[in-house]
Amino acid sequence: MTLPPSISLPDLSHERFSVEYILSGSAAAAQAAAQKMTVEQTVEFPQEALPAGDIADELVGRIEAFEPLEGGRQRAVISYAVETAGRDLPQLLNVLLGLSSLLPGIRVNRLLEIPDALLNQYQGPRFGPAGLREIVGVYDRPLICTAIKPMGLSSEQLADLAYRCARGGIDIVKDDHGIGNVVWSPFEERMARVAEAVERANAETGRRAIYAANVSGPQDQIVERALIAKQAGAGAVMAAPASDGLDAIRVLASDEEIGLPVLSHPTLSGVFLAAGEASSGFSHALYYGQLQRLAGADSVIFVNMGGRFPVSEEDIANLLDACRAPMGDLPPVMPMPGGGMTLPRVPALLEFFGRESIFLMGGGLHTASPDLEGNVEAFLRAVGG
Amino acid sequence: MTLPPSISLPDLSHERFSVEYILSGSAAAAQAAAQKMTVEQTVEFPQEALPAGDIADELVGRIEAFEPLEGGRQRAVISYAVETAGRDLPQLLNVLLGLSSLLPGIRVNRLLEIPDALLNQYQGPRFGPAGLREIVGVYDRPLICTAIKPMGLSSEQLADLAYRCARGGIDIVKDDHGIGNVVWSPFEERMARVAEAVERANAETGRRAIYAANVSGPQDQIVERALIAKQAGAGAVMAAPASDGLDAIRVLASDEEIGLPVLSHPTLSGVFLAAGEASSGFSHALYYGQLQRLAGADSVIFVNMGGRFPVSEEDIANLLDACRAPMGDLPPVMPMPGGGMTLPRVPALLEFFGRESIFLMGGGLHTASPDLEGNVEAFLRAVGG
Repeated sequence: MTLPPSISLPDLSHERFSVEYILSGSAAAAQAAAQKMTVEQTVEFPQEALPAGDIADELVGRIEAFEPLEGGRQRAVISYAVETAGRDLPQLLNVLLGLSSLLPGIRVNRLLEIPDALLNQYQGPRFGPAGLREIVGVYDRPLICTAIKPMGLSSEQLADLAYRCARGGIDIVKDDHGIGNVVWSPFEERMARVAEAVERANAETGRRAIYAANVSGPQDQIVERALIAKQAGAGAVMAAPASDGLDAIRVLASDEEIGLPVLSHPTLSGVFLAAGEASSGFSHALYYGQLQRLAGADSVIFVNMGGRFPVSEEDIANLLDACRAPMGDLPPVMPMPGGGMTLPRVPALLEFFGRESIFLMGGGLHTASPDLEGNVEAFLRAVGG
Repeated sequence: MTLPPSISLPDLSHERFSVEYILSGSAAAAQAAAQKMTVEQTVEFPQEALPAGDIADELVGRIEAFEPLEGGRQRAVISYAVETAGRDLPQLLNVLLGLSSLLPGIRVNRLLEIPDALLNQYQGPRFGPAGLREIVGVYDRPLICTAIKPMGLSSEQLADLAYRCARGGIDIVKDDHGIGNVVWSPFEERMARVAEAVERANAETGRRAIYAANVSGPQDQIVERALIAKQAGAGAVMAAPASDGLDAIRVLASDEEIGLPVLSHPTLSGVFLAAGEASSGFSHALYYGQLQRLAGADSVIFVNMGGRFPVSEEDIANLLDACRAPMGDLPPVMPMPGGGMTLPRVPALLEFFGRESIFLMGGGLHTASPDLEGNVEAFLRAVGG
């Protein structure tokens, strides 16, 4: 052998976290895939050349359960030593899926058991529902949010939209995800204009609407943009974990100087979802729920069923559960369904998502009637405000 | 209308880049999807409420070509105003796929025309093949690379592996992607040990092997880790765009103080690939080739056909082409096939990938014989060294 015949790791905590996978294919094929995953996502080394002892016994993943599901798929639970996930999100992603993402038909469905040794590495949402409510001063109904767009509008025009929405009673006015630092609305200029517009509306209405600034962009500028946004008067920041990297959410959420709520935007997130039998990826619950919560998103935006994108009620229900179910001491993430919402659909949203949610309506507020402020007022009334 | 009836954007360059998509489904369904994408990935606004003028005419994507392909799929070419892609990679990803990633069956196949106005925003690979060859002092054969692993080994043990590989004639010794900052091998400690071991071997052999340090991890520590690695004597850095965010590659490649070659690792990258009819994502050529090249990777690691992962020869051939075909003034990216390579397969690799490549063998060097140094010598001979 090229390595010592046996290796012992006396410092191992022997604490393990476990992950539920849904695997495509026959039981035999899925069993073989699960076996492969235990190695691929951890030691990534030929098993015949692996030293005996703790590396083979503890660091290689362990299949804890395996059972057939209806519809010809299989459920596998694999546990991993907490230490394999390192101390950061990219390394956790390596262990959850990593190179196995290149194998077909693996859905990483749910983090099942997460010992404190792993959970304690993550601060989670700084504000969560309680903190967000305190900031906007709304306690007894869902919050409402809109995006200022389309791209091509000037900062003045975007600020005017923000003003009218805040006048109408919106709680959160967010940038469109497509509007970061664009020629028609340079980042710094927009921060100043929009934050001022929201503040002016607040002074008139007595409400406490906030502006959520899209700080998605170059990794070495995200924190700087967030600080510029804060300085200008923005009340929250937004980034997109699928394009910015999941850790961008953690960086924003944990930075003491920024200290603002963080919204997680779903652009490009479809690639992270397992779609169809051949594709590998994450479930809605794990990607939008558990991972964003570990990273520290105070609210996660996702596309809702019945809108412009296909998604199942079951996936959304599981996502909701992952946002809210106990997860150590981490506060819940406030779910923010969007993606084709219209005023007539608000009652159904209320029934499904409940009060502890944020409802996002973008284009729908521009098609309901020519009166944007009036449309926002109607949105507010529809959620009980 | 809630917006001005017409908007003119006098500053528009009227330069457009065009993107080839392969769409699943019937011609009618794919045509409808393409139409939707022109809006979803740009203005994301109800078309009936969109101001007339430049936003509707220029910022909304434009279908430039549409034709059926064999096998019931459709090819669409969509062009976008350069300005919609903003000035950064996350925003480019928004326009290439963005929220449409949540629609089924969209494969972003290739950037076709990329005007200088867009290309000039990216520095691309700092070294490329010529620069890499100069660093390791090898001009007449493919370079060879290995990874030191498995996780669980101490920094001393990893350094010993690196020493033996460098003695055998490896050009690049890289960290395993699963070994960043782990308890058994803390980052700083490993940098010092492994860099020293490679340097010691170089002093003995007269070669110029380099250590490529895995700096994947927290976004706010990547640059710092790269600088620690450089200080310790590492000759290259590695990050994983799928888990760290694509822009991590650009940050590393463009930082003057770091100034080291950048390797792009494929962990988690399977989620970014379109797999099967239902899944949306990128082609191998676009994800591993064009995007990494824009970001500035000097070499891109990907899993090769015939190894542990399923991948078609056509996808790999297109990837190769994207690494090497002219792309403005950007240097080529050196392709680094890996993922289950063994010594007997080297001649076939040579024939397919040619001399201007880096061959990566990890586990295969540990199973060929118990003599790691001898196995590397055989690897070197097999590529003509």
